Amino acid sequence: MTEASDLVPEAPEPAEGSGARPGLSRRGLLGLIGAGTAGLAIGAGVGAAITASVTASGGASTAAVHPFFGAHQAGITTPVQDHLHFAAFDVDDDTTRDELVALLQDWSYAAARMTQGLDVSASGAVGGSPQAPPDDTGEALGLPASALTVTFGVGPGLFEKDGIDRFGLAARRPAELTELPAFLGDDLDPLASGGDLCVQACADDPQIAVHAVRNLTRIAFGRATLRWSQLGFGRTSKTTVAQTTPRNLFGFKDGTANILADDVAALDEHVWVPAADGPAWLVGGSYLVARRIRQTIEVWDRLRLAEQERTVGRSKGEGAPLSGGTENTDPDFEAAGESASPAIDVASHVRLAHPDFNDGTRMLRRGYNFVDGNDDLGALNAGLFFLSFQRSPQQFITVQRALAKDLLSEYLRHVGSGVWAVPPGAREGSYVGAGLFA
Amino acid sequence: MTEASDLVPEAPEPAEGSGARPGLSRRGLLGLIGAGTAGLAIGAGVGAAITASVTASGGASTAAVHPFFGAHQAGITTPVQDHLHFAAFDVDDDTTRDELVALLQDWSYAAARMTQGLDVSASGAVGGSPQAPPDDTGEALGLPASALTVTFGVGPGLFEKDGIDRFGLAARRPAELTELPAFLGDDLDPLASGGDLCVQACADDPQIAVHAVRNLTRIAFGRATLRWSQLGFGRTSKTTVAQTTPRNLFGFKDGTANILADDVAALDEHVWVPAADGPAWLVGGSYLVARRIRQTIEVWDRLRLAEQERTVGRSKGEGAPLSGGTENTDPDFEAAGESASPAIDVASHVRLAHPDFNDGTRMLRRGYNFVDGNDDLGALNAGLFFLSFQRSPQQFITVQRALAKDLLSEYLRHVGSGVWAVPPGAREGSYVGAGLFA
Repeated sequence: MTEASDLVPEAPEPAEGSGARPGLSRRGLLGLIGAGTAGLAIGAGVGAAITASVTASGGASTAAVHPFFGAHQAGITTPVQDHLHFAAFDVDDDTTRDELVALLQDWSYAAARMTQGLDVSASGAVGGSPQAPPDDTGEALGLPASALTVTFGVGPGLFEKDGIDRFGLAARRPAELTELPAFLGDDLDPLASGGDLCVQACADDPQIAVHAVRNLTRIAFGRATLRWSQLGFGRTSKTTVAQTTPRNLFGFKDGTANILADDVAALDEHVWVPAADGPAWLVGGSYLVARRIRQTIEVWDRLRLAEQERTVGRSKGEGAPLSGGTENTDPDFEAAGESASPAIDVASHVRLAHPDFNDGTRMLRRGYNFVDGNDDLGALNAGLFFLSFQRSPQQFITVQRALAKDLLSEYLRHVGSGVWAVPPGAREGSYVGAGLFA
Repeated sequence: MTEASDLVPEAPEPAEGSGARPGLSRRGLLGLIGAGTAGLAIGAGVGAAITASVTASGGASTAAVHPFFGAHQAGITTPVQDHLHFAAFDVDDDTTRDELVALLQDWSYAAARMTQGLDVSASGAVGGSPQAPPDDTGEALGLPASALTVTFGVGPGLFEKDGIDRFGLAARRPAELTELPAFLGDDLDPLASGGDLCVQACADDPQIAVHAVRNLTRIAFGRATLRWSQLGFGRTSKTTVAQTTPRNLFGFKDGTANILADDVAALDEHVWVPAADGPAWLVGGSYLVARRIRQTIEVWDRLRLAEQERTVGRSKGEGAPLSGGTENTDPDFEAAGESASPAIDVASHVRLAHPDFNDGTRMLRRGYNFVDGNDDLGALNAGLFFLSFQRSPQQFITVQRALAKDLLSEYLRHVGSGVWAVPPGAREGSYVGAGLFA
């Protein structure tokens, strides 16, 4: 396995050395039930794979292609794509540390390929033996990369679960990586919360995001199991000035004050874990908080426009703070309103979430709207799948606690939740999370 | 109400004449809870509204805009858009015939506006009184029309429910408009099946499709209630040669042999209800069948490629029939395979669904993929939301019965179902379904 050093220099050998190519677990990419030891041809490794022709899975791509490897994982400051498929996984009880490593290697290998518009392996959906299940499920054949990014995170349960240090990682757990505290208004479904691992797949085509999660789920077979997943559309944030500010399902612009990708100082201060914080394996990474927030849109829709605006603290059309100006005008919380009260209500969302009232706390948000059919009463099961990246989960906790008095909270119900540490990006030839096992 | 004749010549007066503008039910567009009698300004009517500026809700649109009015409803032969929000409604028990008419008028009014990129009313999301709830929910503000089409259908329950002729329509029910028979493999959820009315909203932006269904649901308040709804992505059909053939979640091209929009003869033979069939109010209309088909994708993914192809009867990559050629080559069901058996298995999907084995039966399909999270076992709750338009429901019944022996059916489970008559298009100033009440 000397070649392994070229591919995964920081990783131990794959769990199943026999027959495995360097850095790949045959069990992951080939060992699915029924595939047996069929002689599929796998590329030489991640590096070679992504420098191969990008026309394998299409060729007509005019869409953006984002690099998988780099100092930070893609999908955090990347211009927010239109669609999301988010998935949380539990590592199976009988999975060993080596198998966990192999899973993370296989995931990075597959993600690196898919983000470039390639199938999950060189033989892909139709290039293998007819007598074996295809490596790739095929629904992305002919489609461009569609700006796909795949972002991986590791949850508290990976470090310790039910008091057991399953993978010898307990000593490496950041003190801050614990389940979030309970918040006022929480109505969490445990089956749609948490997870040892998470995958955030964002793309401009939902079929591409779904394809990524589906194939990563398949690769995990026998090692980790899908716990819950969520599709989203209509990004509710932006990460570049060029992106228009989208609207959430309350009809208001959302993401006006988000941290932008070119604001290096703000990213360093609020998003990336610095060396001073550590642990070393997480430096250059971040923490991801996900919240599935059901919005009672039917109730909201019956509010007077003035009351909607008072609740948010901004105008509905322009998105300007009620203290005046335009969307990007800073709110003036001292400005007087029509009566003796301030123009921006003291319990409005914009005020309670504002850095000025939260010790300067900011987060990089990346949420999506969702509609999952409707409930038995004919109300749409709709809301916001909130995603935020921050240097510490404490940032989210601080703001969420402040929002306990938020007028908006009357129309929200948090039904799902999770927190994960998001390792830094992998360098070419390595895999996301390698530092955790170094 | 003399002006009413300009707007809805075939319709009776709105149920609530007091204060209502011609052809509009104030209850629908304005009478939502809390709105009271606030003095919102409504445009003069559908015709005027849609000739008004199309920049009201955006202005930067470069996307397609489809006309709402015409001989046929849009959304049938319209080039298939990328996203779907489908909704089924039950008319409330205390709704009168006049109120039902007013609902259909309001729906057409709102749909005609939204398909042109406008808010649901002239005052829209932010143009009304601050002391009233906005007419429009606002999440489409600033977005283009995005090729939105809204297609309405009427179900068997509108004509008779529990033996009661609620709206005096029983005599007008086409004999063929009855609930579909049970099929082998049905595992229907009654709460996700049927409905007195249906709305098919298709758009190239899911936020636009969701906005349409949400606002139509809101307009229906007090008259009809959302029964079930379904989002879909990744169209699994095409209606023009120029559209590429998409892939379903089994990774196969789907829709190769669909009826195309420019095939007038096939549309007349298979899709549009002719005068000879009647009833008169449905001539130029169609019948819509919806089936929510859960695909057991994890099982499918473990099949050998050769077995997947045998099951479908086509190659996975090219989509060519296994008798040879390319995607658009006609299948040769007599061609010999490697052994004594034919190249295309007699139980393959392509053969059993083929017109040659179903008395020439064809349908215009318009299905979408869906993924609604996952089940407790970690399997994606994924599948195909099948939609077909046909001259008679018997066409669907014929083919679906033939598919009882389909190899593919082992990997499918029909969990939702519905059938609706789809009236012809409305002429400008009228509304969809007017003929039913003439």
